[in-house]
Amino acid sequence: MSQHSAGWTSPAVDVLRVTSDGFATVDPDSTPGYRGRKADGVQSLARGLTVLGELQERLYAWYAVGEAQASVLLVLQAMDSAGKGGIVRHVVGGVDPQGIELAAFKAPTADELQHDFLWRIEKRMPREGMIGVFDRSHYEDVLIARVRSLAPAEEIERRYGAIVEFEKRAVDAGTRIIKVMLHISRDEQKKRLMKRLDRPDKHWKYNPGDVDERLLWDDYMAAYETVFARTSTDAAPWYVVPANHKWYARLAVQELLLAALEDIDPQWPRADYDVKAEKKRLAAS
Amino acid sequence: MSQHSAGWTSPAVDVLRVTSDGFATVDPDSTPGYRGRKADGVQSLARGLTVLGELQERLYAWYAVGEAQASVLLVLQAMDSAGKGGIVRHVVGGVDPQGIELAAFKAPTADELQHDFLWRIEKRMPREGMIGVFDRSHYEDVLIARVRSLAPAEEIERRYGAIVEFEKRAVDAGTRIIKVMLHISRDEQKKRLMKRLDRPDKHWKYNPGDVDERLLWDDYMAAYETVFARTSTDAAPWYVVPANHKWYARLAVQELLLAALEDIDPQWPRADYDVKAEKKRLAAS
Repeated sequence: MSQHSAGWTSPAVDVLRVTSDGFATVDPDSTPGYRGRKADGVQSLARGLTVLGELQERLYAWYAVGEAQASVLLVLQAMDSAGKGGIVRHVVGGVDPQGIELAAFKAPTADELQHDFLWRIEKRMPREGMIGVFDRSHYEDVLIARVRSLAPAEEIERRYGAIVEFEKRAVDAGTRIIKVMLHISRDEQKKRLMKRLDRPDKHWKYNPGDVDERLLWDDYMAAYETVFARTSTDAAPWYVVPANHKWYARLAVQELLLAALEDIDPQWPRADYDVKAEKKRLAAS
Repeated sequence: MSQHSAGWTSPAVDVLRVTSDGFATVDPDSTPGYRGRKADGVQSLARGLTVLGELQERLYAWYAVGEAQASVLLVLQAMDSAGKGGIVRHVVGGVDPQGIELAAFKAPTADELQHDFLWRIEKRMPREGMIGVFDRSHYEDVLIARVRSLAPAEEIERRYGAIVEFEKRAVDAGTRIIKVMLHISRDEQKKRLMKRLDRPDKHWKYNPGDVDERLLWDDYMAAYETVFARTSTDAAPWYVVPANHKWYARLAVQELLLAALEDIDPQWPRADYDVKAEKKRLAAS
């Protein structure tokens, strides 16, 4: 662990990685691996942002001169109001927008439905040198699709294997994949949705359908368990991030991103031109 | 002018709009319309960011419920090192990434060259509710294309009219278009490029081709004059932003964005559901 990781007693990649036990034992109120409180966490987040910003710029620079074959993909999945938007705004949003490719996946369009479920995903995979962020993803096709029976059972079944192979190909081609489930409790969701109903400037964020999904909470949790059991691989592991504390969830996702970038360890590329000669040319121009 | 505009003696939209005299008289060192210095400008920028953030969220919310037919498009053009990247990072980067669609246009690909020059532009126009940002744009097709004779003279000639009509259609369909040329002096460019050569971590930003373009400075300025004369319309005016002072250029572009959003004046949408009934449903869930 590097400098920015002050406050972490164990690496986030270790303590948050989903185990074969699933996530039933993960407390959404907990802050695993981090010994600080909210005020420390907010400070750690700010410090980490500077490191993340530099690593991102290095990765981008590396790509710009054709040396990088690497990219990062952050996949965000969660129940409504768990804080995906806050991650995008406060973790991803702290990085130069030029290095970010954000894709928000909604219900598939009629056109998308006429292709395999991974067709629209492939199109939005990050380019080399970029940090891609999926706000929802191909996992909707085995989550809501399973809970709501939007596809036949055999088709859902086929998808787990297809996802594993698809992600393996991406990883082999140089993409680090970080899959995050933001884990809030059912009570916390009720509180957050109620807040949206209480504030007129948040009414647009509320949708009566949110309660319909909420009523299927246990089915969703079971669908997540299956997702973890079937698609958490060494190539592309799942992380369950307790998210009742927004500050912790943001810090933890930042830490996962930092670990991926440090693993890539992008270097400032060396000039592929004669620096001295160029200085002369420039001075004379 | 609203609260955030403290420090401005005249609206940026008025003092920066290109006139029929062109921009030969615009001093790249000047800070038109703003009476403060750097320290004030940095403060004004931070204050403006909060306002911009809220206006962007309102615009996005408006769209989310199907009420907005509006979007904003910021077009950035400039000579190398004039600060486009800094605008993207420090002005656009302060806004929630979920509300931004950034497109960086490089030299057209073989595929793009087999279409009209506006084909790839149309594909990247911002969706409703979004702020689109073009880092370079269709104007390259009448700037470098003209200076470097990348297309026959009649074709370049055709493009001015095509651009005016294309932009008028976008404006009629609800897009506010803000076209910005960041205006630095030739000396300032030399200083900035030299800095890139002096710092190993900036070497990747330097390209020997930059000096080749620099040697054509006067041709580029003439090409810009023609662009302004032919394509600055009431529907989609050009603004020349003096950019030797980075803090001023950032503040000015922010002010232009704010003016466009205030002109749209997006409102928090009203709930299209029964708030009371939903509170009951949620409480029982």
